[in-house]
Amino acid sequence: MRTVRWDPDGPAVFMIDQRLLPAEFQILTLKTADEVVQAIQEMAVRGAPAIGVSAAFGLALAAVNSRAQEVESLWQELETASGKLRAARPTAVNLSWALDRLLQAASEFKGKGTEAIQEHLVAEAQCMADEDVRINRRMAEHGAALIPDGATLIHHCNTGALATVDHGTALGVIRTAHEQGKRLHVLVDETRPRLQGARLTAWELAQYGIPHEVICDNAAGYFLSRGVVDAVLVGADRVAANGDVANKIGTYMLALAASDNQVPLYSVLPTSTIDLTLPSGAEIPIEDRDAAEVLDLQRSGKPIAPAGCQARNPAFDITPHRLVTAFVTEVGVLHPPYDVHLRRAVQEAQTK
Amino acid sequence: MRTVRWDPDGPAVFMIDQRLLPAEFQILTLKTADEVVQAIQEMAVRGAPAIGVSAAFGLALAAVNSRAQEVESLWQELETASGKLRAARPTAVNLSWALDRLLQAASEFKGKGTEAIQEHLVAEAQCMADEDVRINRRMAEHGAALIPDGATLIHHCNTGALATVDHGTALGVIRTAHEQGKRLHVLVDETRPRLQGARLTAWELAQYGIPHEVICDNAAGYFLSRGVVDAVLVGADRVAANGDVANKIGTYMLALAASDNQVPLYSVLPTSTIDLTLPSGAEIPIEDRDAAEVLDLQRSGKPIAPAGCQARNPAFDITPHRLVTAFVTEVGVLHPPYDVHLRRAVQEAQTK
Repeated sequence: MRTVRWDPDGPAVFMIDQRLLPAEFQILTLKTADEVVQAIQEMAVRGAPAIGVSAAFGLALAAVNSRAQEVESLWQELETASGKLRAARPTAVNLSWALDRLLQAASEFKGKGTEAIQEHLVAEAQCMADEDVRINRRMAEHGAALIPDGATLIHHCNTGALATVDHGTALGVIRTAHEQGKRLHVLVDETRPRLQGARLTAWELAQYGIPHEVICDNAAGYFLSRGVVDAVLVGADRVAANGDVANKIGTYMLALAASDNQVPLYSVLPTSTIDLTLPSGAEIPIEDRDAAEVLDLQRSGKPIAPAGCQARNPAFDITPHRLVTAFVTEVGVLHPPYDVHLRRAVQEAQTK
Repeated sequence: MRTVRWDPDGPAVFMIDQRLLPAEFQILTLKTADEVVQAIQEMAVRGAPAIGVSAAFGLALAAVNSRAQEVESLWQELETASGKLRAARPTAVNLSWALDRLLQAASEFKGKGTEAIQEHLVAEAQCMADEDVRINRRMAEHGAALIPDGATLIHHCNTGALATVDHGTALGVIRTAHEQGKRLHVLVDETRPRLQGARLTAWELAQYGIPHEVICDNAAGYFLSRGVVDAVLVGADRVAANGDVANKIGTYMLALAASDNQVPLYSVLPTSTIDLTLPSGAEIPIEDRDAAEVLDLQRSGKPIAPAGCQARNPAFDITPHRLVTAFVTEVGVLHPPYDVHLRRAVQEAQTK
C-alpha cells in the first residue's frame, strides 16, 4: 500500500489520510490539483518526498482535467496549478523540485499537442513515484550499514513509508537494518505539535515488528546523556549547499543533545532534498503554522492553555551542518566537507 | 490565595488542585498525611518548594491526628508519616529538607510532651510556608536585576506561585521584573508531558498581565537561534554540590540550545533546593512516571499512539553546571565556581 498513488481509472490520486492515523485508516480520493494543494496544506499528506510526488500527481491532474485545445492555454493552466502546488508549503524543496522536473520534461512535448503533454505528465509523475521507492531502498541500504546490531536509536517525526511513496528515508534505514536481522530498539520522539512520531512512526514500527517506545521530545536529551543511545536518525525537508538542514521542529535541539554526548546523528534524504541554490540554512524559508496545532491538541476542542492564549508554531528549524555526523543519500553516505560532497552527490544522482 | 495553606479550623491543608487548571479552579481539603502523600504523587500539588511545604503540613497533620499518649509512640508515628511523605516523589530534595527540618525542630520539644510537639510542628510548618514567600520575593529581587527592559524570555515548566507557596522562583523573577515596570515577553514552553507551561504558567502570566505566547518545547531552539531571546529562566528540583541541576524534563536540551546561542540561562531556587551531600548530578535520583502521562494527553481517554504502544516517561533530567550562567537564590546571584559558591550560599542562608 503506497502512501500516494495514481488511480488510472480516475483520473484521481489516492492518499492515506495521515491526519486520522492511528485511530482510523482512510483513503482520500483527490480529483483536482486544488484538492491536492489542500491535502498538502492540511497535512493529510506530509513528508518531503511524499509531498513532492503528491505535487507531481497534482500537476498531472491539472493536465488531464484541462479542457484546453491549444498547447499555450494548457501550458498556462499548468503554470497556474504549479504555482499553487509550489506555494502549498514553503520549507520542503521537494515540492519545487518535482514540479520543475515535471514541467521541464513536459516542455519537450510542447510541439506534439495537448494530449501528448497530458499523457507525458501522468507517465512522468508515476515514474517519479516509482523512482522514490527505488531511491529509498538504496538510501536504506547505505544507511543500514551504519547501524550496529543491538542498537538503540532515537528517531524524530515520521520519515517512514508515510513520509514517502513507500519504505521511507530515516525510518527506511531502520526498517532495512531490521530486515537484515539486526536487533533494534527505537525511542520514538512524539514530535509535537502534530505528534507524527507517536501517531505515525509508532504505527509503522508496530507493523514492521520493530520494538519501540514513545518518548516526549523533551526526554531525548535524558536518554542521550545516560549513554543508552547509539545513533539519532532524522530526515530532512531541505539541505542547503553547506549542509545546514531544515527539518521538523525540534531537530536542532535533538542534534545538540546528540552532539553533546558524542552520539552520531544521521540525516537521511534523497538528493532531491538538497538545494544547492541556497548557500546556508539562514536562507531556507521556515513555515509558521496555525497556533491551534499547539493549543488544541489532537483537535479535541479542549485547548491545553487558558482561553484566549496565543501560541507560536514554527514547523521546522535549522540544524547547523556541524551537528550532522553524515548524510545518507541514494548515492551513498556523505561526510564533511559537505559543501563539496553534497554538490558531488547531486551531480552523481543526475547522471545516473 | 496561596497554593498550599493550613486550615486552623481543620485540622486540614487547603491546596489548589493543579491537575484541573486552567479549566477548573478547585481547592482540595486534605485531612491526613496519607492524603497529602497522594496529592504530591498525583501532582495535585507540584513544584519543589510547594511540595516541601506540603510535606511539612502533611507531617503536621500526622501529629495533630495522632491519638498517641506517649512521646515515643507519637514520634514513631511521625517517623512513619515522614517516611511516606519523603518517598512520595524522589527527585526534589525540598521534600526531605522540609521533613528533616521539621523533625529536628520538634525533637527539641520531646521533653515537653505530645501536645507541645504537635503544636510546635503546626507552628513550624506554617512558619516554613511564610518563609517560602519571603524567600521567593528576595530571590525575585536578585533575579529581576538580571532581566533587561524589553526582554524576551523563555520559561520552562511552571515555577510560579503554583510551584511555591506564593510568588514563585523563576516566574517570580519575571513577575517582579514586570512589577518594576520592565516590558517583557515570555515564550512559554508548554512542557510535555503534563503541560505545566501551557496550563499553569500561561494561566499565571495572564493573571499578572504579562504578554506571552505558548510554544512547543521543540521550538525553543528555533527562537534561540533566531536571536530573539534575551534569557532563559528555569527553576530547579535539586542542585548537586558541583552545580549540576535536576529540573523538569527538557531543561537539559533547552540549556544546550541557550548555550549554543550565547543566551544566558538562569536557574532560580531557594537554598533549600541545594543538596551538598551529592557531589554531582549523576547521583540525583530521577523519577520515572507513568507512561499514560505521555500517551493519554490530558487524560482524554484517546491515546495519541496506537493501542498497546509503550512509552518512557522520565520526569526530570540533569543539566550540567557548565550550561548554567548563574543561580539566583535568596542570598544572591551565584556565579561559577559553583562548588565554592553554592556551599557558601547554604551557609549564609543558615546563619540568617
